[in-house]
Amino acid sequence: MTEHRVVVVGAGFGGLFATKTLRRVPARVTLINPTNYHLFEPLLYQVATGILSEGEVAPPIREIFKAHDNLDVQLGWVTDVDLVAREVLVSGFDGRERRVPYDSLIIAAGAQNSYFGNEAFAEHAPSLKNIDDALEVRSRIFHAFEMAEIADDEDERRRWLTFAIVGAGPTGVELAGQIAELAQRALKGQYHHADLGQTRIVLMDAVDRVLPAFDPELSASALKTLKKLKVEVRLGTRVVDVDEAGVTVAGGERVEAYTKIWAAGVKAPSLATRLAAATGAPADRAGRIVVEPDLTVPGHPEIFVVGDMAAQNLPGVAQVAMQGGRYAAQVIKGRLAGKPVTKPFTYFDKGNMATISRFSAVANVGKLHLSGLLGWLGWIGVHLFYLIGFKNKVTTLMHWVVSFLGRGRSERISTSQQIHARNALHHLSTDDHHRAVGVVQQLQDGRTQ
Amino acid sequence: MTEHRVVVVGAGFGGLFATKTLRRVPARVTLINPTNYHLFEPLLYQVATGILSEGEVAPPIREIFKAHDNLDVQLGWVTDVDLVAREVLVSGFDGRERRVPYDSLIIAAGAQNSYFGNEAFAEHAPSLKNIDDALEVRSRIFHAFEMAEIADDEDERRRWLTFAIVGAGPTGVELAGQIAELAQRALKGQYHHADLGQTRIVLMDAVDRVLPAFDPELSASALKTLKKLKVEVRLGTRVVDVDEAGVTVAGGERVEAYTKIWAAGVKAPSLATRLAAATGAPADRAGRIVVEPDLTVPGHPEIFVVGDMAAQNLPGVAQVAMQGGRYAAQVIKGRLAGKPVTKPFTYFDKGNMATISRFSAVANVGKLHLSGLLGWLGWIGVHLFYLIGFKNKVTTLMHWVVSFLGRGRSERISTSQQIHARNALHHLSTDDHHRAVGVVQQLQDGRTQ
Repeated sequence: MTEHRVVVVGAGFGGLFATKTLRRVPARVTLINPTNYHLFEPLLYQVATGILSEGEVAPPIREIFKAHDNLDVQLGWVTDVDLVAREVLVSGFDGRERRVPYDSLIIAAGAQNSYFGNEAFAEHAPSLKNIDDALEVRSRIFHAFEMAEIADDEDERRRWLTFAIVGAGPTGVELAGQIAELAQRALKGQYHHADLGQTRIVLMDAVDRVLPAFDPELSASALKTLKKLKVEVRLGTRVVDVDEAGVTVAGGERVEAYTKIWAAGVKAPSLATRLAAATGAPADRAGRIVVEPDLTVPGHPEIFVVGDMAAQNLPGVAQVAMQGGRYAAQVIKGRLAGKPVTKPFTYFDKGNMATISRFSAVANVGKLHLSGLLGWLGWIGVHLFYLIGFKNKVTTLMHWVVSFLGRGRSERISTSQQIHARNALHHLSTDDHHRAVGVVQQLQDGRTQ
Repeated sequence: MTEHRVVVVGAGFGGLFATKTLRRVPARVTLINPTNYHLFEPLLYQVATGILSEGEVAPPIREIFKAHDNLDVQLGWVTDVDLVAREVLVSGFDGRERRVPYDSLIIAAGAQNSYFGNEAFAEHAPSLKNIDDALEVRSRIFHAFEMAEIADDEDERRRWLTFAIVGAGPTGVELAGQIAELAQRALKGQYHHADLGQTRIVLMDAVDRVLPAFDPELSASALKTLKKLKVEVRLGTRVVDVDEAGVTVAGGERVEAYTKIWAAGVKAPSLATRLAAATGAPADRAGRIVVEPDLTVPGHPEIFVVGDMAAQNLPGVAQVAMQGGRYAAQVIKGRLAGKPVTKPFTYFDKGNMATISRFSAVANVGKLHLSGLLGWLGWIGVHLFYLIGFKNKVTTLMHWVVSFLGRGRSERISTSQQIHARNALHHLSTDDHHRAVGVVQQLQDGRTQ
């Protein structure tokens, strides 16, 4: 009998926990991911606001799994599944396509940012879903303060000192809180011409409360903290246009801001569309696959979909993906051992947390609601616990001490390549500009699956 | 009497020490730099090889000088000097040009990489002069090992596992040593299809010994260490062509390598050419300004040129720039106090060091020559001492412990944007490709002055 082959697609929380669980299973495992690192996405906003280095939230996959003897790690993105041949199609950075055979398949390709059909917004309002985004957002935030300092016109300076954030979920709220901390504390006194006290942070969402996935009581507590930080929260506000100089909301009102960040929504990656078409599996409005109670695709007990790519009526948080990945691996393990798992997947809700500023976070832990300092201490503990690698725990704690007890932001590098790439594109003819932007987006679409 | 205005151009070692010395001087100081950070260039190769984060070698300028009340920091690059109006012309990222008036001017704009007229090499062989370069080189190095792992052809795999480094000065030698450490130690056992033992590192230079600025005895010692690391050192070898798949040397021999790094030479920035033309000051073959014994431009006692941009018959090392910057500031200080400094600038040689691999470095300290472990311990001490900021010293030491005592490389992020930008450019028409590359290079030329 030849060895059973398991392919895991994606090294996010779902793929990571599936792969961990498959150690010592009598199978050959192949993990395919478009980057060489796992991403601890909940801390991405701290990379964007100068607290952490990208290495601290993105441990190398090969380092994590160096003790796994039954594992192959491959760089590339899975574009499609050949159900008949039982192979995944992998696109590489060299433009070639490879095929990787599977007996069992765990798809944990996550979600990607959604502009709700307005893809043109992306150029002016980057999102915050991966390391490249975080470096881009970091570059724009710190660059904005520099431009405000040398602006020779008050309107211009105001536009540089205004930050518009679309989306009041955890990412939007955490970004708003951290930009407020930057302007009011971390960068205070470091600019002589720009008055950072005039910094405006406008947080917009079409929903009627911040952190809608949390208990209403915690939403109210988060809103209070945001107001204390002078963040302008505009709820029930739908964004209809985003351009270089600002945001237009339904009703025609303008928010003039050079820096815009999109934290508004997610959709399933294009792989989900192709998988639904091939298998006939139903998909929800966001394109996620509706799976069986054991997380398999209807009619395909050999294919599992876990985490954000599955429609499960569960929040799009790390814990759902982790538990789903672990469950799928256990089902495969059970089958190989001749002891099938019959229990369906159930999600154990360990809680939900978001930090708004230093010393202030909100957390749902079962029926327990924490806010303020207590929530914040809980947040620190949980995040340190889940960070991967001893070194990352130590240096991250060091950075938190520097940033929260002190007021330093040591990772303030605004790499020039983003700025230059934008400038270079502006000098191209319109046709080629669109072609270049299109190619980049196509690749990014593939990369984030 | 209006306040005396000092303008410092560049926040490298020269500009940093000039600005430090000008604290509490009765003058208004303006420091102009194209990035928001100072760069600790001697450790850039550690960012490129996954040991340090970019924040650790690039402290924010405003953080360094937050206690300086007489200082303005401005983002932008100085393109020219108007000698009559006594103003520098500053180009900004918004495409606008500003003018900043001076009474005294310290130009410390450094050097930029030189391809000796073969600018087309840059696309295939990036250099290592700034943070963007370091992230680009890091991306290419780690990407190469990933591509070797999935290559389906032995020739292809060999090309991915071959690293060609042009230039056997400190940067080339240190890079070669670190790539060897990666292949032989840090990444060992993490790849199953690529045999990292087959990694070839080819270090080429037209000169006849490695580290030509060091004592010949230390060059010999460095060469021995490199050979122990199986680095192929080719001296007296002139590179005549660089393309996507390799390097061609004089005589026609090819080194097939997908990863090429250019560490071969520097030239003065374009500002030097314009300054020479405007003032009539002589320049040397590399375009550096020949200055008076007090570092001023002939006929312009109000303009100082320090560091790599001055032709001084001194090595292009940090110490020369630091001491020059401090000296120029002291001359200005003396003039303002009515106590002119009459002593010409003299360089106090504190020594020269390069590290080849863990536990092995070479150092010239006066007549003392250190090599091996002793040199390496000296190297650690000196570099920690000169790193800016307590936090950077601590986390850097932590990273060194992890990388040198352990074998972890935690900063292995290969951001996708470089790869995507390269791919996007390849999809443009040839004309627009050249235009885009040209715009980027023009901006980079300006940026690095």
